[in-house]
This record gives sequence, C-alpha cells and structure tokens, in this order.
Amino acid sequence: MRLKVKDIDIATGWPLVAVMNEIDALKLDIHHGDRVKIKKGNKSVIAIIDISESKKTVPGGQIGLYEEVLTKLNVKSGNFVDVSLVEKPVSIQYIKKKLKGKKLSYEEFYQIIDDIIKNKLSEIEITYFVSACYMHELDIDESVSLTKAMVSTGDILKFNKHPVMDKHCIGGVAGNRTTMVVVPIIATAGLIIPKTSSRSITSPAGTADTMEVLCSVCFSIKEIKNIVRKTNACLVWGGSVNLAPADDKIIRIEHPVSLDPEGQLLASILAKKKSVSATHLLVDIPVGKGAKIENRKRALHFKRLFEAISKKLGIKIRVVITDGSQPIGNGIGPALEARDVMRVLENDLRQPLDLREKSVKMAGLLLEIGGKAKKGTGAKKAMKILESGSAYKKMIEIIKAQGGKKIKADDIKIGKFAYNFKANKSGLIVHIDNESISKIAKAAGAPLDKIAGIYLHKHVKDSVKKGDKIFTIHAKNKQKLSYAVNVLKKTDGIIIKQVN
Amino acid sequence: MRLKVKDIDIATGWPLVAVMNEIDALKLDIHHGDRVKIKKGNKSVIAIIDISESKKTVPGGQIGLYEEVLTKLNVKSGNFVDVSLVEKPVSIQYIKKKLKGKKLSYEEFYQIIDDIIKNKLSEIEITYFVSACYMHELDIDESVSLTKAMVSTGDILKFNKHPVMDKHCIGGVAGNRTTMVVVPIIATAGLIIPKTSSRSITSPAGTADTMEVLCSVCFSIKEIKNIVRKTNACLVWGGSVNLAPADDKIIRIEHPVSLDPEGQLLASILAKKKSVSATHLLVDIPVGKGAKIENRKRALHFKRLFEAISKKLGIKIRVVITDGSQPIGNGIGPALEARDVMRVLENDLRQPLDLREKSVKMAGLLLEIGGKAKKGTGAKKAMKILESGSAYKKMIEIIKAQGGKKIKADDIKIGKFAYNFKANKSGLIVHIDNESISKIAKAAGAPLDKIAGIYLHKHVKDSVKKGDKIFTIHAKNKQKLSYAVNVLKKTDGIIIKQVN
Repeated sequence: MRLKVKDIDIATGWPLVAVMNEIDALKLDIHHGDRVKIKKGNKSVIAIIDISESKKTVPGGQIGLYEEVLTKLNVKSGNFVDVSLVEKPVSIQYIKKKLKGKKLSYEEFYQIIDDIIKNKLSEIEITYFVSACYMHELDIDESVSLTKAMVSTGDILKFNKHPVMDKHCIGGVAGNRTTMVVVPIIATAGLIIPKTSSRSITSPAGTADTMEVLCSVCFSIKEIKNIVRKTNACLVWGGSVNLAPADDKIIRIEHPVSLDPEGQLLASILAKKKSVSATHLLVDIPVGKGAKIENRKRALHFKRLFEAISKKLGIKIRVVITDGSQPIGNGIGPALEARDVMRVLENDLRQPLDLREKSVKMAGLLLEIGGKAKKGTGAKKAMKILESGSAYKKMIEIIKAQGGKKIKADDIKIGKFAYNFKANKSGLIVHIDNESISKIAKAAGAPLDKIAGIYLHKHVKDSVKKGDKIFTIHAKNKQKLSYAVNVLKKTDGIIIKQVN
Repeated sequence: MRLKVKDIDIATGWPLVAVMNEIDALKLDIHHGDRVKIKKGNKSVIAIIDISESKKTVPGGQIGLYEEVLTKLNVKSGNFVDVSLVEKPVSIQYIKKKLKGKKLSYEEFYQIIDDIIKNKLSEIEITYFVSACYMHELDIDESVSLTKAMVSTGDILKFNKHPVMDKHCIGGVAGNRTTMVVVPIIATAGLIIPKTSSRSITSPAGTADTMEVLCSVCFSIKEIKNIVRKTNACLVWGGSVNLAPADDKIIRIEHPVSLDPEGQLLASILAKKKSVSATHLLVDIPVGKGAKIENRKRALHFKRLFEAISKKLGIKIRVVITDGSQPIGNGIGPALEARDVMRVLENDLRQPLDLREKSVKMAGLLLEIGGKAKKGTGAKKAMKILESGSAYKKMIEIIKAQGGKKIKADDIKIGKFAYNFKANKSGLIVHIDNESISKIAKAAGAPLDKIAGIYLHKHVKDSVKKGDKIFTIHAKNKQKLSYAVNVLKKTDGIIIKQVN
C-alpha cells in the first residue's frame, strides 16, 4: 500500500512507531501492535503500528512517522512510502512459550534479548516477557542463560591481567558509599578493579553521581581500559558504555508495577559483572527495615542464588549479609557522600567511622578472595593501606586519570541553605529510616543538585540532649530547602524516635 | 513544576500521554509510565509520562501534550501548565496481587476494569493484568466477578418482557451466518431476542458486517429498545453501544502475542449477554481443523466453564458442540453471506442446505429453552415458521425497523470481477480449510468491500468432475481479484483435496 508521509514531531527512543488510520489498517488487515515494512527507494525500516481513529492525527491515505523513522528513511512530509505487513519476530514465540510455563534455552533468551536491544519488540511484548519471568521464576540454568544472553548482546571490557575484581551492593541503604573507599584500597594492593556503577534511580545518589563530584565518570570502552591500565582501577558510570544494555529497557517495564523477578534481577547484576570480565566478586546484601531486602531469610535465599549462578558463570563469589537498618556514613547526597569518602581516605578525624569500618571489612574480603591476603587477615591489610595514606594517593591517581584534579574533603562544596533538625527532648535515637531520609534528601534537590542532601550528626544508639542537632538539610536555594522541610514535617516522626 | 506546552499533533485514543524531557523528569523524580497531574487554571488532567531523551522532541522546561490533553485543558503551544507527580491508581495493587497468584474479589476486578475503561491504566499495566489472568487462570468465582465488573462498567439494555433470548458462536468457521436466520424465527415465535453482534476482527465478515448489507446496524440504546419493541428483535452492531466496553481494550493487548486467557474470554462473552439482559442463552462451539476450537476435549472443557459461570450469573444456558471442519453456507463475505441468509428465509431452491439445517437446529433449541416448544419438538416448530414464510416477513420487519427496505436475495449485488477455481481431475472433495478460504476472501477485499468474497459451489464429500467449478472468487475490481488469485495460488493445495 502506498501512503503519504505525515511528519509527527516526536521521538520515542523506543521501537520505531508509525501511525495509520484505521481505514487503511483494515484494508491491510493490520492490528494495533502489528509490524509493517516501510519502504522508500532502497531504504526500508520495520515499525510497529499504532492505529488512529482520529482523522486529525492521521487521515486515510497517510502514515504518521516519528522522528527516528523519518531519519532512517530520509523522508519528509508529503513523500510517498510503500507499506506492507511483516511477520512477527520469532522471539514472540519464545515469550509465549515462557508464558505457558516452559523453560527457555540460551538460544531462546538470546533471541529475546537481542530483539529487545534492537528495538524489535514493543512495550506490550516485553511486558509479557517480564511477567512470564516473574510468574514462572527462572531456574538456575535459565538465569545463567539469560545472563549470558545479556552479556553477549553488549560490549565486553577485556583485560590481560588476572584476576579481575568487582563488587556489588543490592542497595536501598542511604549513604553507604563503600565502593569509593574499597576500590582505591584494592588497586593499591595490586589487584585490578574496573568498577562501573549506576546513577541514582530512586535514591538521592548513586556511586556514579557521587564520583562525578570529583571528576568525570563518562568514558568510552577504550578510555576505561586506559584508566585501568594506568591505575589498576576506575570508578565510572556504566550507562556511558554499552555493557549488557537490555537491562535499562527491562527496568523501564518493571517500574510501573515495581516488579522484581528474582532470576532476572540476578541476571542483570551478574551480566554487568561478566561484561567487565570480572573473575572475583564480592556482593553486599544489606538487610533492614527500609532497605531493599527487609529480612534475613530473603537475603539468604538471594545469597544461595548468587552463589549457584556465579559458579556456573565461572565467577568466584563471596556474598555478605550486612546491617542495612540505618544510613551508613553521615552524608546523604552526592557532594555530602563524596566528602565522607574523602574524609575516610584522608584519615580525617571528622570521618564517619561506620563507613570506614564497613569499607575496610569489604576491602579485606576482596583482598582475601583475590589472593592478596590470607583468610582472616584481609581487613587488617586493608586498614594498613588506608592508614598509610596510599589509598588516598590511589584515589587521587584515579581522579586525575578520569580528568579531575587533586582534591581534599574540605574543598567539596555543600549547599549553603541549611535547616537543622533538632531533638525536642533528651533521649536515645532508636530508628533512622532509610526511605524517609532519602525522600527528604531528594526533596532538597539530590541527586541533580550535587550540593544538596542531608548530613547526619547522630546515628542509631547515639544519645541526644534536647536541642542537639540530629541532622542538617542542605539545599542550593531557599525554595528547595523549604520543600525538603515540608517533606520532613510530613514524615510524622518515623525518622527518629527518642526514648528516655 | 511549571512547564511550557508543546503541541504534539497526535491522538492516541489511549491513556492520556504527556512527554517530558529527562532532565525535568529527574527533577520531579518521575519515571517512564508514572502519572502526573497537569493543571491550567481550574482545569486539570491526569496523564501518563513518556520520557524523552531528545531535546528535539521536548526540550527541558517544556511538556509535550497530545491532542486529547490539549483539548481537555484547553491550552495551546506556549501556554504554561503546572505539573506534579500523583499516586498510581489503587488497581495497580490488585494487578500485582493477581501477578502473585492470589484470587481477586469482585471489588478488585471492578476497580481494574473501571480504570481500564477510564483510560487510567497504561498499556504496560493492562498487559500485566492480562498475563496474570493467563498464567493464574481465573476460577469460576473470579470469572463471575470479572463478568459482573465488565457489565457494570458499561450501559445495560433493559426490557420489560421475560424471557430475553440470546445466542453466541465461538467462531472461526467461514460463513456460518446462522444468527440472521435464527433471530427472525425466534422473534416470529413471540420471544424477544435483542441480538448485538461484532464486526469482523480477523474473518472476512462478522454478523454486523453482513446485516449492514441489508440495513443500518448502528443504533443508540434508545433506538435499539424501539426496534425490539416493534419487532421482538434486532440485529445490530455491538460496537455502536457502550455494552461491556472494557473488552475492546483487552483484545488489543492480547493481539500482539495472540493470547486467549479462558476465564477472561468467557467473561467477555457473557458480559455482552448480561448487558442486553439475556436470561436464556444458546452457545454454539464449532469444532474442527481451522476453527477456533480444534478438538472436542477443549470444546467440552469450554462447555463446562460456560455452564458453571452462567449458572452463577442467573443465565439459563444450552451449549452445543457442532461440526466446524468446513465453511457453512455457500457464500463467504458480507454480501455473499447475506444472499445465502435471504435465500434460506425465502425458501429459495438455491439456498445452502447446511446453513438452513444448522439454523433450524439452533432456533429449535432456543424455542425449547425459551418455553415455546416441548423438548425434542423445537426444530420442527422452527422449520414450520421458516417454511411458512413468516421468518422472511419478520426479517423484512427488522430490516425496515433498522432503516432498510424490503429486499430479495436476488437484489443483493455481488462483485462482478470473478475467478473460477476448477477441479483439475475428477474425484471427491475431502477438505475445505476455513483459514485458507478466509484468507482468500479477505485478499479479495472482504469485509471492507461488502461485495467481495467467495462462493462455494461444492462442499466436503461432494464429488466433482474435472473442470467443475469448485468455488468462485468475487472482487470489486481486477486488481483485488488478481491479489486474491495470488493468495489462492500460494495456498498449496490445502484448500481442497481430491481423491479418486
């Protein structure tokens, strides 16, 4: 069928979409979500059809094309294109197979993931895949296949050295920026650790956001290899490279109903590690109210899954379950967290001791599994590296390799508009809620305003006197500060309880 | 947040959509698929957010609004609107509950269906609902709840008379236009039968398409009541009234992976019947290769489900399993099928006897369950009504009440461009494939070209001599005829087999 192009001034970044009037769709026996081939000269694209009942949007005889389709075909309004129905991709058969509760093979997962990253599947189709993986949970073999499929549909960062260390935290705990302390310790000890991290998705800061306070975090594969060659390490944003790229699209589909199919979650995490050629991995599962994993039983279940899948992937893994009941470190928000990290590395007296302690423990375990310390002696070695100032020096090396300058904790700028939350009676802090703290820090502007966030003067089990500062909110202007204070006032005392 | 409106010249007919730049989305902590309230003066709407990474589509500081949103807010490009994040509808919790395999109550189904028809749920969210209903099949109580929810979220056609008869066919058999013969027979016998039918979805003709050859089929609730008051019956298009309207949207979601969750399928069918206040229902399940239900076991399973659900809905039901292995009647396509129907009603010698026989059987059963004939005598009574010419007279009454004129079978125009498919040897017809016949009729232009389709000169078990016409393809022009002939040539002999 020959149709006249109508330019629809929108880009979706999603499958290529074209809009047809219902009359033309009926003539070609095309339904909402079907695929058509759109041809102009020797160029052609496959697009998914949206059917319009409105003549205003797309009248009969025309086809509405989105930005990406217009560009690919090099056409503009008024040009004519040829439109024909095409078969659905074979991966839809595999999605249906999984919907029916059957196991999928590596080849079948590969086809689905490949079609997802090549924009061949619609949101509806990917949703069927995600819900099938949720309702018919992947077994170990399927999780392994899915992980491998995610790895091989993206780029892979390769190194000549062995072992390649990595760490991952399941998250949900405010602050907790151990990675930025651990990485320079490990690199100092002579192990390579090419760390890619995410930006904040729902938290006030991700490791990438925090590192970005000190230097750039966006690099190509080639640049990352160079940084690692120079310093044994990197601390970069995973989103700037094409490692296991299917993940982002799957997360986007899970968000509306906040699903987290286990097998798929683990596959996503391990695929990122496998894509940087990690051979040894430390996984931190913080457990506590407000953290992602709220009870020990579920944490143990995840631990077992991680161990089983990693084994089949050839990754040596150590999973630790840690206390996730309250924020770790004093700062919440990119600049405030970066200052904490630098204070720990500088052995500054104002450093948060909980962050120091947890980082040393983590680094110690990595040194042990990486063969740089005997069992039970890793933490001691890590502490020595930290105390000697070598870890700080290594961090400055990494920062410089990533285009930053030598920096001290005190050079880091924090939002000047501040509000102190004070104890209204004397007593003991019994609970600091991760979720509430995150909400307030986000209301203050984090992570977009790097200088915004919260500084905790007190932690759980600390005693306070009436009038003592419990925490300070920082923002870049008065308006955002008052917005955060409003959120604080609505949290209804769940953040901090005091008992006599 | 205050954003400047950008007019996006497209209407989706789906949930209201607005497009934000990723920078603004990050500031408001909004993710793809989240809901925002958009306010201008005293008008406000809730829209689902699509996030754009492209500055060209929607730059920071702006919000792209689709046609429907622009109209509802009465704004245009350059106006400023206020945008804030709103909570997800509670029905998402219920969808998640079903995803986890739990049973839903009537109230929970009602909330989901109500949100679907009010455009409050996105395609992703409805997909989760459909897949949950597929993987955790609804039990009888849930099917009943879903049916009731579908009924009460639409209009209801009420009558003072009792009983109210109805019939339904599961479909998939080409031709098979029994409804248009059955309805006038039942109405002649004094029972009321307010028949709403669908247009073709994937077939060459639906009952509504076929009836439209004779008169209009689009009426309001009030008009339908008038037609039924005058004639005891109607033969109208269900899509022109708002009866159990959620169905259309659910079908649209099922299409991309061609899912048919049983409980939901039955709920959709029975909701349409309950919406016309049907008290007595005859269901026809044709079984055979190429029909929707391919084996007897599955047909029996459906029969039991129909009986159990109908009982709880207070509908007296009779389910018959019929032969669906080949087309019924000679004509395939709206005009050709309408001519068959009129020939049966006129007792014309050229009538298709299979259509006559099946219609009389169906009508007989309806007369029996409606109390107009004793058990075992219904078909005889139906035949008498048909032979007497009263059914023909009633049909003309109905046609006139629906704005048509008195018509005879021979008045119906058929596409003049014709191609005869002839036997290439003598023998016996052993198989006529429903799917292939439908494909060819559609290629010839049906249902959009009402005069297009196929006329079968022979049926299964008929003997043919070499050169005998087996069927004729009709089209409105040469081009479409040759298109259909091409499809015929590709069908590779599966349509008709001949044995010596």
